[in-house]
Amino acid sequence: MRRSSRLLAMAKRLFDRPHHVYSLSELAGSEVAAKSTLSEDVAFLRAFLEETQEGTIESLPGASGGVRFTVGMPDSIRLRFLERLASELSHPSRMLPGGFIYMSDILGQPDVLDNIGRMIAAEMAKVQPNVVVTVETKGIPLAVATARYLDVPLVIVRREHKVTEGAALSMHYVSGSERRISTMYVSKRALPERARALVVDDFMKAGATAQAVRALLAEFSVEVVGTAVFVKTEEPQKKLISDYLALLEVKATQLDGSIFVQPVYHA
Amino acid sequence: MRRSSRLLAMAKRLFDRPHHVYSLSELAGSEVAAKSTLSEDVAFLRAFLEETQEGTIESLPGASGGVRFTVGMPDSIRLRFLERLASELSHPSRMLPGGFIYMSDILGQPDVLDNIGRMIAAEMAKVQPNVVVTVETKGIPLAVATARYLDVPLVIVRREHKVTEGAALSMHYVSGSERRISTMYVSKRALPERARALVVDDFMKAGATAQAVRALLAEFSVEVVGTAVFVKTEEPQKKLISDYLALLEVKATQLDGSIFVQPVYHA
Repeated sequence: MRRSSRLLAMAKRLFDRPHHVYSLSELAGSEVAAKSTLSEDVAFLRAFLEETQEGTIESLPGASGGVRFTVGMPDSIRLRFLERLASELSHPSRMLPGGFIYMSDILGQPDVLDNIGRMIAAEMAKVQPNVVVTVETKGIPLAVATARYLDVPLVIVRREHKVTEGAALSMHYVSGSERRISTMYVSKRALPERARALVVDDFMKAGATAQAVRALLAEFSVEVVGTAVFVKTEEPQKKLISDYLALLEVKATQLDGSIFVQPVYHA
Repeated sequence: MRRSSRLLAMAKRLFDRPHHVYSLSELAGSEVAAKSTLSEDVAFLRAFLEETQEGTIESLPGASGGVRFTVGMPDSIRLRFLERLASELSHPSRMLPGGFIYMSDILGQPDVLDNIGRMIAAEMAKVQPNVVVTVETKGIPLAVATARYLDVPLVIVRREHKVTEGAALSMHYVSGSERRISTMYVSKRALPERARALVVDDFMKAGATAQAVRALLAEFSVEVVGTAVFVKTEEPQKKLISDYLALLEVKATQLDGSIFVQPVYHA
């Protein structure tokens, strides 16, 4: 019983804050146990996660070291989840003018957001982002879910310069889908020096927004280490940025109302 | 060992999706155990959560019944967390023109969002909302975190009518802080019939936005069962809506740059 309680307490801390580095004593909290016992507990939790393919527990050496829970997702569950979403999104009633798809309802479901955040984090943790950046509005919930699993701050690039953002840097760009000049703003104090940004968005057509964010962040000497989108379109095949993760692909949105969405299968 | 694994598997499902109703067999997953054993496990998990004041596990009777994890937060941790935030927000460098406070950085920290979502959900679960509604943009991350702990969908009220939202209902209102006529839009298909909405936002001055959301939602026959904001201002003391939860209060933003933020102490 005693051991079960201790394991639960440690697991809860790890799951409550994925990717956060805990020292062994922080992880144990008020539970009193020898260091060797705690190490065994961590090994048990690691085995539990790896058996279910739900992630692992990494041990980081050194003075600022400790352990952290890195999220994973079994391939079978990942695929089943994406196939279910693809099927829902393929419904003709979701077709909107201009080849867009109505997906705000799906992007408001907490379990969907959580799973997408988990998938993006599991894939992108290796490039070690220390900030998630998104452009308002529809990508924000996805970005929140992703930032949670990476334990990094979220920065929202705005379309308007609001007083609540303080001083901001702005940039014009030509929006690919709307074919007009748009502006984006990012608060001057939002981004740390030497930031490594993961850009997260809901939808990519030509990639103009993703490219503009990259240019805007470059003005802050921010390196964009990755870009992840929920849905990309098949056309144009050549996007303005070349290196990105997409979970779903819209194969075609026809004038007759048919849409065909499918998971993106990675090598 | 066997029991520890089973408890961990059950706990992970419950923590991964707070407030979601699981049947006992869903909760057990691939673990084979008698129903009485699973009930004992649930009792053990409930005792664990209640001892640490991190919530409870409710048993819901009936055919669609099962168990769900309802989040809680110990008063001492709640208060320490809010006091730390109040102290950070009181720094003179956060003072912006018009009596606003720069808080975008704080509202981008995943642990802060998670804790705020937890506090709002713990307080508002009793009014049984089945949807969380927010107005773009700054309140969205808080609304995502809250919706996650309540396991209900999130609906974002927009400031512009975008093609990706489909048909929308719109409404004009006089913004309290900017003293101008603004418009808000909500997608016609976003809200279910007989919705019970919890409105979540980052900041409340006069309450004009919260009041306008209420009026907009009334057009959909949506009942607003609660309103929760992260920070409210002390003045005006009489807001346009009377019944709301606020976590922090700005006591004064002086022209000399001083700000005084403090937790709201509930009875």
